[in-house]
Amino acid sequence: MEVLILGAAGMIGAKLTARLIRDGNIGGKTIERATLVDVVAPAKPSNAPFEVETLAADLSGTGVAASLVAKRPDVIFHLAAIVSGEAEADFEKGYRINLDGTRYLFDAVQAFSNHYAPRVVFTSSIAVFGAPFPDAIPDEFHHTPLTSYGTQKAIGELLLSDYTRRGFMDGIGIRLPTICVRPGKPNKAASGFFSNIIREPLAGEEVVLPVSEDVRHWHASPRSAINFLVHAATLDGDKVGPRRNLTMPGLSVTVGEQIEALRRIAGDKVASRIRREPDETIMKIVEGWPRNFAPERAVALGFRAETSFDDIIRAHIEDELGGEFVA
Amino acid sequence: MEVLILGAAGMIGAKLTARLIRDGNIGGKTIERATLVDVVAPAKPSNAPFEVETLAADLSGTGVAASLVAKRPDVIFHLAAIVSGEAEADFEKGYRINLDGTRYLFDAVQAFSNHYAPRVVFTSSIAVFGAPFPDAIPDEFHHTPLTSYGTQKAIGELLLSDYTRRGFMDGIGIRLPTICVRPGKPNKAASGFFSNIIREPLAGEEVVLPVSEDVRHWHASPRSAINFLVHAATLDGDKVGPRRNLTMPGLSVTVGEQIEALRRIAGDKVASRIRREPDETIMKIVEGWPRNFAPERAVALGFRAETSFDDIIRAHIEDELGGEFVA
Repeated sequence: MEVLILGAAGMIGAKLTARLIRDGNIGGKTIERATLVDVVAPAKPSNAPFEVETLAADLSGTGVAASLVAKRPDVIFHLAAIVSGEAEADFEKGYRINLDGTRYLFDAVQAFSNHYAPRVVFTSSIAVFGAPFPDAIPDEFHHTPLTSYGTQKAIGELLLSDYTRRGFMDGIGIRLPTICVRPGKPNKAASGFFSNIIREPLAGEEVVLPVSEDVRHWHASPRSAINFLVHAATLDGDKVGPRRNLTMPGLSVTVGEQIEALRRIAGDKVASRIRREPDETIMKIVEGWPRNFAPERAVALGFRAETSFDDIIRAHIEDELGGEFVA
Repeated sequence: MEVLILGAAGMIGAKLTARLIRDGNIGGKTIERATLVDVVAPAKPSNAPFEVETLAADLSGTGVAASLVAKRPDVIFHLAAIVSGEAEADFEKGYRINLDGTRYLFDAVQAFSNHYAPRVVFTSSIAVFGAPFPDAIPDEFHHTPLTSYGTQKAIGELLLSDYTRRGFMDGIGIRLPTICVRPGKPNKAASGFFSNIIREPLAGEEVVLPVSEDVRHWHASPRSAINFLVHAATLDGDKVGPRRNLTMPGLSVTVGEQIEALRRIAGDKVASRIRREPDETIMKIVEGWPRNFAPERAVALGFRAETSFDDIIRAHIEDELGGEFVA
């Protein structure tokens, strides 16, 4: 089978690539070729058991989507997006990349729809939801995003459903939880602290916690996110039905529960590297975020996430730290 | 104040124009000028107490939206749309007019947003909802349209909210019930029979009822639709909050209840002009349609519709038939 990954240079894209290289197949079907695309060319993996092409391309450019779809990939992972903060800061760029880019891709697929209808896995986000919320957001809760990013993702979901209903493609949209523990350096995203307060202490670094410990949020590990993507690629579309966008399972925990898990796994000394410095701006932003979901449809369709924050920390130590941390 | 009506030649647009001419103001603010736009130039009313310009223009054409917004209308009524059946039959045209046209309009408003933020009243539809439904669809129910038209309206709603949140405009989206009794000739829309079975018998004509009498649906009169538009134009945006799209009130009745109301008002002879000829295709389509809503937010914000089908029939007899019908 032929695979296309858009947004392959990002954290999720790179981990998905590594997973496909390890497996060599998706749902038992051998991968013959993968095309890895991002605005900067993704690193070319040396160890792939299939042909790999890497490309620098901007989906919002003229003819780009058509040329990528011309190879008729069987599975398209559409992970490419401007992140929330940047889409908010740059109105035009966010709409161009996140909305127009997605539509160009879907239209390119539609243009080939006399020949085939590929599985398109689209990463949406819990940012399609906007406060106020019920305690646990049900699958039938409406989408009232409070950011341009969330708006663009919600529109992508609607297009995916309609293009699938019309038979142009076979789409599955997955609303990812906040990914925790996100590897790499601390960044300035308002949500960064959820990962920073685990990753940095485990690396022997001090870290600032800008919110109170009773802040509750919805998490899944990078490992779970990759499992979601691969499961979405192999799901029976008839079982999903016409509602093609699914809230992924996750774990609802408070920051205090995150810290207690860190203490259990890594000890008091590691947990003591967290310094409380409440930041009113960040606290205000976080207030509008979802805290908990009841993702019954995704669970019924076989999607699984961690059920304890201890497991999320262990996944980080195993997958990113080679099993070791700075005690 | 300056008013712009897009889709002014349609049934709702013409009735809205007549209402503004009658009132001479919106919410107490005198109308100085109205620009009436449609793909064919709307008829120029002779009796307007304000300046009227009529224009044939296609909102999806290059530069059209910008030239219309350049006059800085204080209120923009955006009623222009390809209807459901045509948007389903012509994929490209539906997306071009209903999605691109709406986005061009909002982007044109955004381009002037250093100067002002007009009230934009956007007619959405209950087609943003797709079966299965709860008995009465609550305000927080998700949007899973089962038509391209519904998808395009749902996307328009999302854009309206985001552009309003960013301060580019001051939008209100109103999800209209099925308009009943729709004046004019019977058309081929699958929903046509809801109006046909009242209008035609009152005009002395026989009519076919293609569904069973237990089919339940959600209605409001043309008169109520115009009231919704005018109320939406004057609503305090702060009271609405960030969730700018509202399900309008309506009346949930069965076809049997419609016929009983007709019998009460016009007598047995009129009601006997309805001939039952079940049509499997239409029955199948209608099965996917909403039956009832709980539009609590709109009601709290002062929107009002008929509370009995007798009133809907009386509105038709008064507004369209000069108070008389063929007994």
